[in-house]
Amino acid sequence: MIAPALQNEFARLVGRENVFDDASDLLTYSYDAALLPAQSPGLALRPGTLEELGRVVALCNQEGLPLTIRGAGTNLSGGAIPEGKGVVVVTTALNRILEINQADMYAVVQPGVINQRLFDTALAQGLFYPPDPGSQAVSTLGGNVAENSGGLRGLKYGVTRDYVMGLNFFDTEGQLVKTGSRTVKCATGYNLAGLMVGSEGTLGVIGEIILKLIPPPQASRALLAVFDSMEAASQTVAAIIAARIVPATLEFLDNFTIRTVEDFSGAGLPVEAAAMLLIEVDGHPAQVADEAARVEDICRAQGATQVRPAKDAAERDRIWTARRSAIPALARLKPSVVLEDATVPRSQVPALVRFIRDLAAKHELTIGTFGHAGDGNLHPTIVFDQRDEKQFARVREAVEELFDKALELGGTLSGEHGLGLTKTRFLVKEVGPATLAWARRLKKAMDPKGILNPGKIVERD
Amino acid sequence: MIAPALQNEFARLVGRENVFDDASDLLTYSYDAALLPAQSPGLALRPGTLEELGRVVALCNQEGLPLTIRGAGTNLSGGAIPEGKGVVVVTTALNRILEINQADMYAVVQPGVINQRLFDTALAQGLFYPPDPGSQAVSTLGGNVAENSGGLRGLKYGVTRDYVMGLNFFDTEGQLVKTGSRTVKCATGYNLAGLMVGSEGTLGVIGEIILKLIPPPQASRALLAVFDSMEAASQTVAAIIAARIVPATLEFLDNFTIRTVEDFSGAGLPVEAAAMLLIEVDGHPAQVADEAARVEDICRAQGATQVRPAKDAAERDRIWTARRSAIPALARLKPSVVLEDATVPRSQVPALVRFIRDLAAKHELTIGTFGHAGDGNLHPTIVFDQRDEKQFARVREAVEELFDKALELGGTLSGEHGLGLTKTRFLVKEVGPATLAWARRLKKAMDPKGILNPGKIVERD
Repeated sequence: MIAPALQNEFARLVGRENVFDDASDLLTYSYDAALLPAQSPGLALRPGTLEELGRVVALCNQEGLPLTIRGAGTNLSGGAIPEGKGVVVVTTALNRILEINQADMYAVVQPGVINQRLFDTALAQGLFYPPDPGSQAVSTLGGNVAENSGGLRGLKYGVTRDYVMGLNFFDTEGQLVKTGSRTVKCATGYNLAGLMVGSEGTLGVIGEIILKLIPPPQASRALLAVFDSMEAASQTVAAIIAARIVPATLEFLDNFTIRTVEDFSGAGLPVEAAAMLLIEVDGHPAQVADEAARVEDICRAQGATQVRPAKDAAERDRIWTARRSAIPALARLKPSVVLEDATVPRSQVPALVRFIRDLAAKHELTIGTFGHAGDGNLHPTIVFDQRDEKQFARVREAVEELFDKALELGGTLSGEHGLGLTKTRFLVKEVGPATLAWARRLKKAMDPKGILNPGKIVERD
Repeated sequence: MIAPALQNEFARLVGRENVFDDASDLLTYSYDAALLPAQSPGLALRPGTLEELGRVVALCNQEGLPLTIRGAGTNLSGGAIPEGKGVVVVTTALNRILEINQADMYAVVQPGVINQRLFDTALAQGLFYPPDPGSQAVSTLGGNVAENSGGLRGLKYGVTRDYVMGLNFFDTEGQLVKTGSRTVKCATGYNLAGLMVGSEGTLGVIGEIILKLIPPPQASRALLAVFDSMEAASQTVAAIIAARIVPATLEFLDNFTIRTVEDFSGAGLPVEAAAMLLIEVDGHPAQVADEAARVEDICRAQGATQVRPAKDAAERDRIWTARRSAIPALARLKPSVVLEDATVPRSQVPALVRFIRDLAAKHELTIGTFGHAGDGNLHPTIVFDQRDEKQFARVREAVEELFDKALELGGTLSGEHGLGLTKTRFLVKEVGPATLAWARRLKKAMDPKGILNPGKIVERD
């Protein structure tokens, strides 16, 4: 609970109608998409301008109030879960696309702009914003930057980090720090934009973002490849990469995910398949034709029982949308869902897929596995009932074994969901104590009172 | 001068034969490619292993000795110029390619590996390392990372930052900090690898670097376009970008640079041309054919007096090598050379070219202009005699006016050469005091004694 006098001060900064202290409002901001206990904040604020945002940050710092920035709340690692005594600042009113520059191919946006809206707006002007997290229809660009979101096009086009040319952010005193540029190259000062990407709201509060746009691909072709074993599907991923083909998309779905998604979406997926790959190649029309033919040959050589192109754009969109619905589809099966983000060097995808299958058997759990196999980034998803304490304990064990295995295979704790609250305590396993100490020193220097999204990435002191 | 007892301690760490205190040796490490007063260090050290490097860092910190890391010394902003009482640590013996991973397409290298050697080694294994600074035949990957080096392929392929998947570095205590991963995606902890790229040796000492490799382009075609005005050449750059074509290379040379380079190299450049563009398109053979034809059409429509493909690979290599020799070619004209790095949004290249021509006339200076026009990144190069104090004063004025103009055009102080010692004092003009304060707080936290390459990026307190 924030004292009324302080609430009045916030109301003076952002307007009374943008201050929320009602319990039901605060409940809305108490959780994200990670399986963690909900925690209502003391207050929620909705600034409408960059200046208001800066003043809110400064006042929070002055009062020592924890501040958690929130876009659409689609975070999968608890990064948007606030402190009970703190403030949630929602970016939904900071939703303007400030500039689309055709000649220099960039966009300038406020943090609350929804990813899909930038994509659509840019495309209407003949430009392309590639990063497409599964949540792109709802998640915000500020959240995408704070989490360094990936997506289905990551294999060829990279992740959010690869598109941030520059940004400004508020330091804890509410001063605006400017980093990067509208130029395609910038070696001026520290790469603070690079540091802010993926910093989960712990180092500063993002104000405006300059995002690189590129020419859209001239052509694309979508393929579905069906396999009667998970091994064959995952070996095919490695074989495509080994052939030096870089598809825009190379997605893996196991049988459980296929059935669940089909049940949810009715998109026409092959529910009998042990696994399938969704593949899209794009670029020059001749390249697309060549690569599609080569990919088809590789799939068949690796034992695909069926390989076929999407009949038309409508079928392609239907299937890709179905894939994007994997999370809600899996989530409705059981009361609880843990969506993991295990990431390994791509050649280790077959080993990881085998391990996950054995892990499910060992702990008697239902795990659906899908994800960006071409990136070595899978999302094993455990559906269960957390009220069953024994089952929940097995889930926690399985997740820990999964992290250990990913690291053993040369991988990393998170490919695109961040550490948030869920993985922070495992960080030291991957990077060692010196790295953690360096990160903490950094955090302490830039946020001496520890108000910025406390407990994310590095634990509290 | 470093006390003999301390020299013995360093000798114990790296071997007597890797400790240099002879005045003539130290002179070698007193300068780089920036026009600044030379400054011999107190001692130079050449560690041969990662462990030795870490111990050297720890001892320097313990003794409060300034430490400047040096690769090939090709730095153009003074980043490799040491402190008089400090230590230069040369990375020439840390020159091993530790791994080239074909399946997962990455390389792991020590900082002293020369860029060209990685390029050649990767290519022999069917892989491609795109960043190609003009100095690639001699400059080291550690230096490339510390400076976020660009190159001729930057337009399509990006700069060094885009290829650093991970790295480790020593903190000032000599503890190894690990960041990034061998996976293509990594959202684990702060993006410290991104922060280290371009940090000019001021935040830590790089030990090993994981670099992304990609499939090489299947085909490429090089074109030379000749113009009878600089305006037409620079407008052509904007027209190519506006046509949504992304060449691998899109280089601009003015008449002065053409003549100087031709005189130096005898590569067969058109010495009568007011300006020329070197253009290379690459990718799928059909795409290359299409794009080359479209680029040729655009050049002619913009008034090119001649457009022709390189006759063969030999001619292409001869011309590209000639372009890479622009710095030595210009440098031999006069005793002094200042090579600038003005960078603007690409659509502003024509305005920048005009400004530089007028600037030369106004200050009665000889300025050759060439560079990565497709990136908006030009290298206006002033050749003069710094012993002529009045002329030198005019050079300094011209450089400052150039910075102001680049900023006025929405550009940045440095596209790829970094701030080093030469531009540090101008940083505040571009980013403002809050950004500078944030950068200084960062530096202070990570290097409390200020031993790491003092005075670079942020000035001394």
